[in-house]
Amino acid sequence: MDDVWLALDFGGTKLSAALLRRETLSASRPQWLDSRREWTPATADAAYEIEAMTHLARKLLAGRAPAAIGVSFGGPVDYDRGVVRLSHHVRGWEDMPLRQTLERTFGAPVVVDNDANAAAVGEHRFGAGRGVDDLLYVTVSTGVGGGWVLGGRPWRGHDGMAGEIGHTVVDPAGPLCLCGKRGCVERLASGPYMAADYAAQGGKGRGSAGVLTGQDVAEAAANGDKVAREILLRGAWALGVGLGHAANLLNPQRFILGGGVTKAGSNWWAEVRQSAAATALPEVGFDIVPAELGDDAPLWGAVALVPG
Amino acid sequence: MDDVWLALDFGGTKLSAALLRRETLSASRPQWLDSRREWTPATADAAYEIEAMTHLARKLLAGRAPAAIGVSFGGPVDYDRGVVRLSHHVRGWEDMPLRQTLERTFGAPVVVDNDANAAAVGEHRFGAGRGVDDLLYVTVSTGVGGGWVLGGRPWRGHDGMAGEIGHTVVDPAGPLCLCGKRGCVERLASGPYMAADYAAQGGKGRGSAGVLTGQDVAEAAANGDKVAREILLRGAWALGVGLGHAANLLNPQRFILGGGVTKAGSNWWAEVRQSAAATALPEVGFDIVPAELGDDAPLWGAVALVPG
Repeated sequence: MDDVWLALDFGGTKLSAALLRRETLSASRPQWLDSRREWTPATADAAYEIEAMTHLARKLLAGRAPAAIGVSFGGPVDYDRGVVRLSHHVRGWEDMPLRQTLERTFGAPVVVDNDANAAAVGEHRFGAGRGVDDLLYVTVSTGVGGGWVLGGRPWRGHDGMAGEIGHTVVDPAGPLCLCGKRGCVERLASGPYMAADYAAQGGKGRGSAGVLTGQDVAEAAANGDKVAREILLRGAWALGVGLGHAANLLNPQRFILGGGVTKAGSNWWAEVRQSAAATALPEVGFDIVPAELGDDAPLWGAVALVPG
Repeated sequence: MDDVWLALDFGGTKLSAALLRRETLSASRPQWLDSRREWTPATADAAYEIEAMTHLARKLLAGRAPAAIGVSFGGPVDYDRGVVRLSHHVRGWEDMPLRQTLERTFGAPVVVDNDANAAAVGEHRFGAGRGVDDLLYVTVSTGVGGGWVLGGRPWRGHDGMAGEIGHTVVDPAGPLCLCGKRGCVERLASGPYMAADYAAQGGKGRGSAGVLTGQDVAEAAANGDKVAREILLRGAWALGVGLGHAANLLNPQRFILGGGVTKAGSNWWAEVRQSAAATALPEVGFDIVPAELGDDAPLWGAVALVPG
């Protein structure tokens, strides 16, 4: 009988599932037995996504019974109860008992956590955090969020809300964030906000007259556009200040950065590192490294969430 | 034979020692068997302080042998090795193996930590943090520093530097701090800096032409002095922003505030609470309460550091 584990990722606009033989986990870089991915239509709600994910998983399993299921969810999760609090992208997820639902469907123990915590434990076990027991993983993408590993174990906070580095205020005179405050890390460093600021200053993407993205800003900066460069480096500065604050407060050994914005190039990385070092006290040491697990980080994190 | 524990506090300008019967620790509010305190002369160095503390402890012990010794030190400590890194106030403490020295002198196991960590575990066990397993203790006094208890245990960070909330930048356009950054929490909220800002704006204390203190600022504010009030509330705002950031990052259940500045009155407390709530995300809950152990916090913390 195969001892297979199932890893699921509810990613907002896509669903991913992967299958793993438990015995391969001892390899330094384990491989999936099989994996599948599909995009969800804009009209999808929670019921649709659970149905589609179940279908995807059943195809992967091909009749086998999983010994355990790890789930990464792109939104706030009550880890202790295995309940999704809500999704900012998809309707119908409010207080959804996802663990219970999947346990009934598949007859196996299920662990559910949000994608930032899952990525943190995934990088800790399989990626850039191997051998490092005190770390903060930060995703810099459409939003800016984080997940802690402290003393080798995930730290979720008293209400499971820890890791919200995106809403550290780094410039109280800065632009208004959706959260109501000014000059948050997310307001300055996330892809969509940088793109909006660039567009507001007359920036244009390479393609047809579509919506600008963070990638457009990074590319324009790389091609010498001064406005784009200023916006990109302001974002890097803001993120670095947030990391420096986190270093002073918690003194982790390492920060691991993932998400699309981290592909913006060496100037971006240099500014993040410089700004974090300038913010942290001289006695507070740390390093800042890129995530290693790439797009599969939440799936590997889902695996890492499973106990044993 | 008495099973007595010795608690020692090296406080920068004073030395304190207290004796406790171990069996009284099960009481809801244990009492000292005996305690002593003495001021150190301005010329004192580390060797003098260790000598004077040994003398103080021997008088307390009156021939008894302590079963364990807990030590709070007013400066950075390498907890794992029991070594004082340095003192900002007293010469000669660089890399002083205080645990080893005291273990040889008294023939008992010794635990040494800095005063903020000691106060955090003390409040957790005996004071305002009883029953609360995730908390940050913050002292707001001549400096602003903190100590974490996470999951019921002290969190010291990878290099023992965690808790430096005083050097969170809350206003990058603010006044210059000794650490080289602008607008740190400590620069805005600590007693001496508030007093200096008040004096620079023409503020005067009640007494003769001496140096102003944070207490002078608080008293002038209470008596309706607008400049003093503005400086005091700016400090409270800064501290609240720092607490709000810590709440977003770590999601503790409670913040416990101690130190002289926390006696500045209800307007100060209201501003701290308002500012922290405005900085934290709405989903991030916490409360902010006064420390309960007062001047004896480091001594009770020293007791709480002792295992078992």
